[in-house]
Amino acid sequence: MSAASDVWFPRLAERAQAGPSELSAVLALAASGGDLVDFSGGFPDPALFDTRLLAETASKVIETRPEVALQYASNTGLPGLREALRQDVARTQAVTPAEDELIVTSGGVDAMTLISKAMLNVGDAVLVEAPSYLGAFSVFRTHEGRCLSMRNDEHGLVPDSVLDVLEDARMGASRPKFVYVIPDFQNPSGLRLSEDRRERLVEICRQHGLLILEDVAYRDLAYDGSYLRSIYEIGPDVTVQIGTFSKTFTPGTRMGWACGPATVIDAMAQAKTNTDQCAGALGQCILESLLREGHYTQALPRLREAYATRAGALMSAFDAGLRDTATWTVPEGGFFTWLDIPGVDTRRLAEVAVENGLAFVPGAPFFADRTTSSNLRMSFSRTPTDQMAEGVERLVRSIEAVRA
Amino acid sequence: MSAASDVWFPRLAERAQAGPSELSAVLALAASGGDLVDFSGGFPDPALFDTRLLAETASKVIETRPEVALQYASNTGLPGLREALRQDVARTQAVTPAEDELIVTSGGVDAMTLISKAMLNVGDAVLVEAPSYLGAFSVFRTHEGRCLSMRNDEHGLVPDSVLDVLEDARMGASRPKFVYVIPDFQNPSGLRLSEDRRERLVEICRQHGLLILEDVAYRDLAYDGSYLRSIYEIGPDVTVQIGTFSKTFTPGTRMGWACGPATVIDAMAQAKTNTDQCAGALGQCILESLLREGHYTQALPRLREAYATRAGALMSAFDAGLRDTATWTVPEGGFFTWLDIPGVDTRRLAEVAVENGLAFVPGAPFFADRTTSSNLRMSFSRTPTDQMAEGVERLVRSIEAVRA
Repeated sequence: MSAASDVWFPRLAERAQAGPSELSAVLALAASGGDLVDFSGGFPDPALFDTRLLAETASKVIETRPEVALQYASNTGLPGLREALRQDVARTQAVTPAEDELIVTSGGVDAMTLISKAMLNVGDAVLVEAPSYLGAFSVFRTHEGRCLSMRNDEHGLVPDSVLDVLEDARMGASRPKFVYVIPDFQNPSGLRLSEDRRERLVEICRQHGLLILEDVAYRDLAYDGSYLRSIYEIGPDVTVQIGTFSKTFTPGTRMGWACGPATVIDAMAQAKTNTDQCAGALGQCILESLLREGHYTQALPRLREAYATRAGALMSAFDAGLRDTATWTVPEGGFFTWLDIPGVDTRRLAEVAVENGLAFVPGAPFFADRTTSSNLRMSFSRTPTDQMAEGVERLVRSIEAVRA
Repeated sequence: MSAASDVWFPRLAERAQAGPSELSAVLALAASGGDLVDFSGGFPDPALFDTRLLAETASKVIETRPEVALQYASNTGLPGLREALRQDVARTQAVTPAEDELIVTSGGVDAMTLISKAMLNVGDAVLVEAPSYLGAFSVFRTHEGRCLSMRNDEHGLVPDSVLDVLEDARMGASRPKFVYVIPDFQNPSGLRLSEDRRERLVEICRQHGLLILEDVAYRDLAYDGSYLRSIYEIGPDVTVQIGTFSKTFTPGTRMGWACGPATVIDAMAQAKTNTDQCAGALGQCILESLLREGHYTQALPRLREAYATRAGALMSAFDAGLRDTATWTVPEGGFFTWLDIPGVDTRRLAEVAVENGLAFVPGAPFFADRTTSSNLRMSFSRTPTDQMAEGVERLVRSIEAVRA
């Protein structure tokens, strides 16, 4: 029996009748296994985590702090972790959030849920990069927000395109509430936005009373360990920064944070109570311990080196096999490269590729307003280096098949 | 600077300008400490959890299954845990959810978030008990749902009152989507609904195409270990059952589940992706291990005995000190008793009580449509038995003060 023929289907919310999201499809693909060279999900490689340390720390906090680790936490998070996170924000940024300017979240998507509940009335607009993280579009839309595309070029977001979108929003009677941007090793492009553009973005948003939602999921993963000035550092008065520990600590405990103006953070904390009540205390205790004892930062070089090696191997494979067929971004950090294969509909390509034992995410869903694209995203974060060449061969074969 | 004078305040969503929820106030109260006899939050007592077993299990799953425990899970939950949960549902109910009829959630509140996203369009109605769990009202309202009160008497929900509310909803042009009910040791009343009433509720809802959202948070905590037929068992075609492990396993990993018609569960799974992506895999692995090895059910008698002892001690203290002043429910399971103190506004009483070193939750917020109430909820789940008499003395003193 198909879902659509079920008695409950017409009683679902409209948003739920659209079928599975693109992200669900991606996650299903990644889980399907088999002889697959997998460039799909933006997942970390758990083999890079220090499992012994994590096991010992989990055991330690349960035995020594059960009244905290095994209890509900407050909606803003455990005081000790919040303090550690405020210091961790200051580790790479010349700004320290005040006590009421930071909350613990259940990962990055939860932070997007909370800002949506805090800011969006029905029909309010969110300005998004083109391309940007497709999961964010789903979050904003499920809270009845409208996603309006800004313009990106080969260097990332073009800040002045905000002005064009504001004009469009005014015409469409939609109230713009915030700009969502991923400045560091962006998902999906892999690009890092220049400081000049960050400054210009802050200037424009400050002038127009627009909040910036800065997603720094990949900020700690520059392959050379460098950091640019964050948007939050440049404009803490107009920025809510959200981060996740899913790439650098583990996705297994759902840990993230948000910092920004106290009024917005307070509204997000209220939303937390009626979303999932609180972030898990066990994960909070483990993370606090790792941050305080320095293990978190000590582990970063190893992660950077591993992902740099994978990026390098994939770039070599591209150079060897894809030069005449496609262009791609050369990431200096993070998990992603973004390809353009002129004349190819990458949704169709993705279907053929899976038959050839290759998985990636087609480009269209990374745009808020497109149904076809010649772009695709490859995440190399979990792909063994010795599979890169084979993966690219399969890609070439798939391209030839769809062009035939 | 007050939040309301901040530049961001007028730019928040309307729902976020209402100020902190009642539940936030409760959680803050419980965290305030000091010389407080605390009957506020519906929290378990972590001293009753087997910390050594939990520490060992956490360590074990990280060391032996890092590629699972330290990775993203799918939006429906880990296959192994889902299988264990399907069997656990069947442990006390003559019904086993099919593979596509159960998902793992990040606790009970998350399950309410997911059903709201799956079912509610702007303005749709949710039928709620009077009284019921105040946190649920916040979740439904934050997803633009309207809470309409059914009628409860001294035995709990009156099923036929659904019909009156349906009539009202029809007049108000509001589309009723589901009925939210807590049949076992209800929050806040402590009452267990009879099987007759459960059957009648299923009958009415089936007739009117209404979904029932059955919250079984306290089902495993009958002091005598008994179980009544669940609403899900009686009407699996019209019921989504949601449960939490926060009371019997730990709130520290945010673990819950939902089971029901596949179409609704699938819509909830889609909503999961754009809420917090997935429940934490570490907590899922720990819970799966405890369920499979039988530790979860083995621990229940100890929990039941401890909470029964506390309930008994509080009832004795009531009998000794409160007979002429109030009436109360005598719970046969769970964490709560519900008092009625005729002529007293319990919001005012709660303020005076805190000054006297006593915390409980006033009754009004447990009703979707009242601002005053002579009821109050006391949760005895964390209160040492030797503090019960002192707590009741402080309550009597506080009542005398507000009546003076």
